[in-house]
Amino acid sequence: MKVGIIGAGSIGLLFAAYISRVFEVAIYTRTQEQAAEINKYGILLRKGTEERRALVKALPISEWQGTEELTIIAVKQYQLPAIIEKLNHLSVIPECLLFLQNGMGHLKLLKGIKANSLYVGSVEHGALKENSFTVSHNGEGATNVAVFQGQTASLQYLAAALVLDFSIIFQKDFYDMLIKKLIVNAIINPLTAILHVKNGGLIENHFYFQAVKNLFAEISFILNLEHPEEYLQLVVDICKKTTNNRSSMLKDIEANRLTEVDAILGFLLEEAKREDKKAPQIENLYYLIKGKESDREEVL
Amino acid sequence: MKVGIIGAGSIGLLFAAYISRVFEVAIYTRTQEQAAEINKYGILLRKGTEERRALVKALPISEWQGTEELTIIAVKQYQLPAIIEKLNHLSVIPECLLFLQNGMGHLKLLKGIKANSLYVGSVEHGALKENSFTVSHNGEGATNVAVFQGQTASLQYLAAALVLDFSIIFQKDFYDMLIKKLIVNAIINPLTAILHVKNGGLIENHFYFQAVKNLFAEISFILNLEHPEEYLQLVVDICKKTTNNRSSMLKDIEANRLTEVDAILGFLLEEAKREDKKAPQIENLYYLIKGKESDREEVL
Repeated sequence: MKVGIIGAGSIGLLFAAYISRVFEVAIYTRTQEQAAEINKYGILLRKGTEERRALVKALPISEWQGTEELTIIAVKQYQLPAIIEKLNHLSVIPECLLFLQNGMGHLKLLKGIKANSLYVGSVEHGALKENSFTVSHNGEGATNVAVFQGQTASLQYLAAALVLDFSIIFQKDFYDMLIKKLIVNAIINPLTAILHVKNGGLIENHFYFQAVKNLFAEISFILNLEHPEEYLQLVVDICKKTTNNRSSMLKDIEANRLTEVDAILGFLLEEAKREDKKAPQIENLYYLIKGKESDREEVL
Repeated sequence: MKVGIIGAGSIGLLFAAYISRVFEVAIYTRTQEQAAEINKYGILLRKGTEERRALVKALPISEWQGTEELTIIAVKQYQLPAIIEKLNHLSVIPECLLFLQNGMGHLKLLKGIKANSLYVGSVEHGALKENSFTVSHNGEGATNVAVFQGQTASLQYLAAALVLDFSIIFQKDFYDMLIKKLIVNAIINPLTAILHVKNGGLIENHFYFQAVKNLFAEISFILNLEHPEEYLQLVVDICKKTTNNRSSMLKDIEANRLTEVDAILGFLLEEAKREDKKAPQIENLYYLIKGKESDREEVL
């Protein structure tokens, strides 16, 4: 089976390195330079003290034809519209697509896509891109996958191949799967990014934890959660489990990168509007993070 | 006339330096060390390139008797309960007290105080305490003063003496006077402190300005403002006028000091509770700032 991976950030490199052990992988990069480097050095996967080189064919995204049996789209949500534009102009209908974006803002973009099967996934791995061809796998997790539309055929192969040391968990309900991650992200990401604290800080500092609970109450009301206490517990558990981690949004803000705030809080604001509910805390955090992003542009 | 000044922070030192030109001033300090230094060096007042030394008697607060004709209380709001405790145990009833705290949280503390006249003031000066006896007067403003209870007699002398280069403006209505400053403080202080931006940033960055407008709408609703657009304009004008200033709360957070969040946002939360209204944005900001203060304690 041939697998295409679009996007060579931390998650794209990680998946390419693992999947290339059993399938032929082509990774599509944003720049010609990165493709050249990966073709020259392979992908270097670091895990603990181990280092392993994966030989993977790399091409600039302009050369993507959509002919692989499985294509994994591992770009950020804000880069997705450009990819979907390309998808709509392919000369073939792709067999199987798996979208790994955070949040749920991208779901509405996926609705018009033509493909025989379309999956969404939620990645729990911790991965850090060290340079254009090196990725460090510093947090083991699973990849949760669920059908968004179409058949499940192609992914079964993938699951069989990866189950050894890169687990794939099939979930029945893509909404339930994504909403859990969204809630966790909607609380941990903006608060840690605004406060410049590690994940554990949100539950260790009782004032911050009060802010967590208030924000959760607003999210719970917007999403009409049936057993809210379970979701809040999930947030607390993840803060504990990742106590010394800096959230992705905190890292993005510190590195003057764009964040995924539109995919995360932006989605919740749209949900609030659709339900005709107010979301004052989410809106406030949304504008503070957007403002930080826009200050970043002034810095560059 | 003898004037007592309680508190030798930036505002206490500033007032002592100016008032000592025409009246005999005693300044009461928290520590014996600071009193000794002021007695040794006087108060050094810097303004632009000018430097002027004021000879002022300094005493530790424990020696305060309340016998001066006018006493100006220039401590932070969170230090006020200790001062009021002392006030209640003086052997005389003070003639005239002027309280210069920010916010409105202190008004309820002032209600039981015995004094022949009791004033509240709102200081617009920019002043920076450079060391225990040096203050830099880096922003000219006025001091707005209004009767809180009792007679206006004593302050008329003060006004006459200070009008030359340290203006005192008498306001009819203490509530209206303080509420304006409270609104300005409730918006500029917490947002700049959380975002680590100068005052001008709040209106130059259009995302931050959206957060300003949303927060203002919540405050306006809680305070039942009759012409809200005037107050919002005041906030904008002050952001423009002080565009390169760091707000006091930002400076407090950066220097790991306690902030005046209880006097400012805490007051608004009490008002919201009294009016049975929700204040989700204010509450969120309140907990974020309180959390920052409490992180500070861990640092120390």
